[in-house]
Amino acid sequence: MNDLRNRLESTFNVQGLMKTLGARLLSVADGEVQIELPFSADLTQGLGYLHAGVVTSLVDTACGYAALTRAPEGHTVVSVEFKTNFVRPAVGERFVAIGKLETAGRMLSVCRGEVLAYSGESVKTVALMQATMANVPG
Amino acid sequence: MNDLRNRLESTFNVQGLMKTLGARLLSVADGEVQIELPFSADLTQGLGYLHAGVVTSLVDTACGYAALTRAPEGHTVVSVEFKTNFVRPAVGERFVAIGKLETAGRMLSVCRGEVLAYSGESVKTVALMQATMANVPG
Amino acid sequence: MNDLRNRLESTFNVQGLMKTLGARLLSVADGEVQIELPFSADLTQGLGYLHAGVVTSLVDTACGYAALTRAPEGHTVVSVEFKTNFVRPAVGERFVAIGKLETAGRMLSVCRGEVLAYSGESVKTVALMQATMANVPG
Amino acid sequence: MNDLRNRLESTFNVQGLMKTLGARLLSVADGEVQIELPFSADLTQGLGYLHAGVVTSLVDTACGYAALTRAPEGHTVVSVEFKTNFVRPAVGERFVAIGKLETAGRMLSVCRGEVLAYSGESVKTVALMQATMANVPG
Repeated sequence: MNDLRNRLESTFNVQGLMKTLGARLLSVADGEVQIELPFSADLTQGLGYLHAGVVTSLVDTACGYAALTRAPEGHTVVSVEFKTNFVRPAVGERFVAIGKLETAGRMLSVCRGEVLAYSGESVKTVALMQATMANVPG
Repeated sequence: MNDLRNRLESTFNVQGLMKTLGARLLSVADGEVQIELPFSADLTQGLGYLHAGVVTSLVDTACGYAALTRAPEGHTVVSVEFKTNFVRPAVGERFVAIGKLETAGRMLSVCRGEVLAYSGESVKTVALMQATMANVPG
Repeated sequence: MNDLRNRLESTFNVQGLMKTLGARLLSVADGEVQIELPFSADLTQGLGYLHAGVVTSLVDTACGYAALTRAPEGHTVVSVEFKTNFVRPAVGERFVAIGKLETAGRMLSVCRGEVLAYSGESVKTVALMQATMANVPG
Repeated sequence: MNDLRNRLESTFNVQGLMKTLGARLLSVADGEVQIELPFSADLTQGLGYLHAGVVTSLVDTACGYAALTRAPEGHTVVSVEFKTNFVRPAVGERFVAIGKLETAGRMLSVCRGEVLAYSGESVKTVALMQATMANVPG
């Protein structure tokens, strides 16, 4: 698992966006990846919530990395499509996106993800994703 | 229409994320809004394409603003859910997201969006969105 | 729980489509409903699999009923939108759709669903849904 | 175009579900297919509207056939995933689903669809779909 984590971390750290957002790889397991992001006013929409696009960026990346834990050697993963439901305002001190591989095909995988918002003692689900990922050579 | 543009521009400019990404409001019409973003390596995924989450942030915002052009007075718009298909690698010098209001209900609206990538003389669709927006007091 | 089941069963049995498909309410619990359908060649697509639209009808209904278990009195539930991934060919002797309520708002609920195909000893997930339901007076 | 129509019609007529629903192929063009369905109380949900699953079955099939008009020889088309928004109650005397191919890849295509409800002189959009289709040998 350390090898897997190292391999994912090295690709995570070259993702321009993850650095720009201030996100970090929180945990890596076979078929499940978690990404953490502290709140920042630089990432908000008009009402001061974390922007739906940032919420989606986190959980898309967590889902993509979850798929990557089982991608064939010599392959990387790209997003084919995804759908996100925003179930509560994305308000919190920090956010954790959890991506889980549900089914892994030779070329396409399906993942489900969730974004949790942490505020003091409270933790709430703010978004749910269902995504299709593709294995591509690279 | 100038009033509408001014109203939308003033809310656009307080969106932390749009500033962080370097996006600007390109055009505003009744039920249709366009947003432009120059490419930046700070916004990429592992293969150097614009990250799916950034593509989504742009077109989500364009869709939300398209809905906002017809929202009742005293209301703003939040994303209930959306779905994005990534139909080509998001490679280009600049990107334009187009959001169109398809149906406007009292509380919920449905929008469709598209993201175009411009490279020299070439322009290509890289993503398609279908989204549900809600009018909320604010 | 018997009251809940009776209430749901009486509305299930007036659904023209469920009768036409040959589906039945398999189980009802707080926030989770299961619907069963035997395979029929009358419900297939071109390759002889259960049609994606039938798979979707089952799991949409299971999700709607899951939301209905927590809808305010005097309200029924309609589908706002849903998204289904078809992860394996829908081949089997019978199919079970499971709908689960994930978050229940005053007006909108979000559900996740799954469709299982049973063949002899084998059981396989053939579809995954994420859905938005609305409470409406009725 | 007559050849194309004949080829699609012969596969349409072996689809168990389309016969069970009472649907027929209304028009076939390069990248666009329309399917028609008269209302029937056998296809309803609890409120007497056409069931969301039937609405989806129609527009999924229209989208799949739209993709099929450009599939490589020796291939058929299966639904990878789709998302449907229900924008008005599906009430009408007859329904027309329109599927349009938006982008055709070697393996995956993206389509958009719409379902119109006709009642006397009135015609209204009741649903919008965005779908991913796959070309498979067969």
